[in-house]
Amino acid sequence: MRTNQIRLAAYPVGEPKDSDFKFTTEELPELGEGQVLLRAIYLSLDPYMRGRMSTAKSYAQPLSIGDVMLGGTVCEVLESRSDKRHAGDIVLAFTGWQTHAVADAQHTRRLDPAAAPISTALGVLGMPGFTAYGGLLEIGRPKPGETVAVAAAAGPVGSAVGQIAKIHGARAVGIAGGPEKCRILIDEFGFDAAVDHRSQTFEDDLASATPDGVDVYFENVGGHVASAVTRRLNRFARIPVCGLVAGYNDTETPTGVDRLPGFMRRVLTLSLTVRGFIQDEFIPTHQDAFLNDMPGWVRDVSVRYREDIVDGLDNAPEAFRGLLRGRNLGKLLIRVGEDPTN
Amino acid sequence: MRTNQIRLAAYPVGEPKDSDFKFTTEELPELGEGQVLLRAIYLSLDPYMRGRMSTAKSYAQPLSIGDVMLGGTVCEVLESRSDKRHAGDIVLAFTGWQTHAVADAQHTRRLDPAAAPISTALGVLGMPGFTAYGGLLEIGRPKPGETVAVAAAAGPVGSAVGQIAKIHGARAVGIAGGPEKCRILIDEFGFDAAVDHRSQTFEDDLASATPDGVDVYFENVGGHVASAVTRRLNRFARIPVCGLVAGYNDTETPTGVDRLPGFMRRVLTLSLTVRGFIQDEFIPTHQDAFLNDMPGWVRDVSVRYREDIVDGLDNAPEAFRGLLRGRNLGKLLIRVGEDPTN
Repeated sequence: MRTNQIRLAAYPVGEPKDSDFKFTTEELPELGEGQVLLRAIYLSLDPYMRGRMSTAKSYAQPLSIGDVMLGGTVCEVLESRSDKRHAGDIVLAFTGWQTHAVADAQHTRRLDPAAAPISTALGVLGMPGFTAYGGLLEIGRPKPGETVAVAAAAGPVGSAVGQIAKIHGARAVGIAGGPEKCRILIDEFGFDAAVDHRSQTFEDDLASATPDGVDVYFENVGGHVASAVTRRLNRFARIPVCGLVAGYNDTETPTGVDRLPGFMRRVLTLSLTVRGFIQDEFIPTHQDAFLNDMPGWVRDVSVRYREDIVDGLDNAPEAFRGLLRGRNLGKLLIRVGEDPTN
Repeated sequence: MRTNQIRLAAYPVGEPKDSDFKFTTEELPELGEGQVLLRAIYLSLDPYMRGRMSTAKSYAQPLSIGDVMLGGTVCEVLESRSDKRHAGDIVLAFTGWQTHAVADAQHTRRLDPAAAPISTALGVLGMPGFTAYGGLLEIGRPKPGETVAVAAAAGPVGSAVGQIAKIHGARAVGIAGGPEKCRILIDEFGFDAAVDHRSQTFEDDLASATPDGVDVYFENVGGHVASAVTRRLNRFARIPVCGLVAGYNDTETPTGVDRLPGFMRRVLTLSLTVRGFIQDEFIPTHQDAFLNDMPGWVRDVSVRYREDIVDGLDNAPEAFRGLLRGRNLGKLLIRVGEDPTN
């Protein structure tokens, strides 16, 4: 069996270019004992991948040049040499940017297509949903009546943050780029207010949308949005920091005003809690609760989700660039191959 | 009874000048029911006072022009119209920069001169000691074998932080200005290592002193010390932010490199916890434990302390400037009047 792959050809400087990727085809090895042959159906594209395409110090090892681009996938089992998986099973795996792969069965999780659309295992019921759940509830700890602000609010993490905040009795204020996304925040995701960060009146709009200030700022973009929200923070506000996508493509250390002393002064005088995290660290403490709560919330529509599905593995690099620019609406997935459950 | 006072004459720009203070004399009112007439013995000078001499937004109301400068004091009761206090009692009060005051007895706390030197109620057994205790144990949460770094380590908060860290089994690394302070950190306060931040080899020295990185950075200075320690932080490090004295006199927003994005990236990739606080907020949860632990540690000499006593209220402005420059060694106190217990 051959697999079509996209590999890292060079560490991108700034936005990843086509030449930073390399398309390859490879013959897969024979299955070993306990292994499965997988056909990718959906590939998840996520901002964290940009961090792995860099040698800058991070929580995870960077990709090496020549590595297949990494990523979570939903796959169909074509062949199995494990008694835990059978041909035709749909599984969650981490096979990256390729059409087929051989994996250890124990590194896959079986999905039940009857319980939820299989693509949601990469979104609202998967890593992005868990990121929202763990970061908001463990670090943000919203109390009834408090205000939770979240940027990239129309994205898979942000939209879940706002809706989980509402379930916990907080007021949800979403920040997104453009009037269409803002409309969806209100009409579809049920945010209490939506603010367009591309608007000239952004800061005033944010102030109007947060009359009682902000108690939790779920940080996943950084940049000018973060600066504006920081000025609205209340005493004892909590800031789960789960991403800084606005700066992921930055190539130079920004100059001008050094905002760090002012930020730290605010941390001090407002008794702020700023806490970086990646979702893995909450798996031991929160995964059971997540798997208990979230499917029910999705079923009873207290949590809605959107998907943005792009067809064809070849389109992954361009889709990934769009993701970093905030172009997509909802969870970005590549449909690598036919979805047999659809 | 007349009182000699020092009042705020103008909001200082940069370092407080003599002309920012005004010396006044005032006749005190007659004692009301429940009130006491107090004679100040010791006045505490602390960095937080600089924040109150400014209209910048902070956790507390700023002083108004003309207000008596604020501050904690240890006083002798000269007259009492409360059955809870008697002439001759030594009390902790908050009468500010003046020689005498009338206060409500209920706003004073009686001290036992036999239990500890009365001046310690303003230092190791008072607000600075509690700041170290609450911030380190609630936010820093040092574990045995971890490394705790603290700046202004020869000061009343820093020296207590290091020694409490040791009691909890952590390795204590103190940062201070100059070789004399560094010697005292080792010889007197029992730090495991001391680093002189005025040395040309500061960053290398810090790296040598923290071979396993830094798990807790107790932040009370900011500036270049904070930048250097930040580069030594381990994953999941905690940063209690209790002060930023290096910037308290700053008049301009610093320019050059904007260090905020890099700092936030570190917060994210290292899962850091950055938490500002003022000691008041830990009173409900930690004061009983502090009053239980700290006097015993002082008695059995697992916590040592130093005092830097300046005679005469008139010298308070100059002593305060020295404090902000890091000139003093140990808890800075003004001896306003004779100590009858000495």
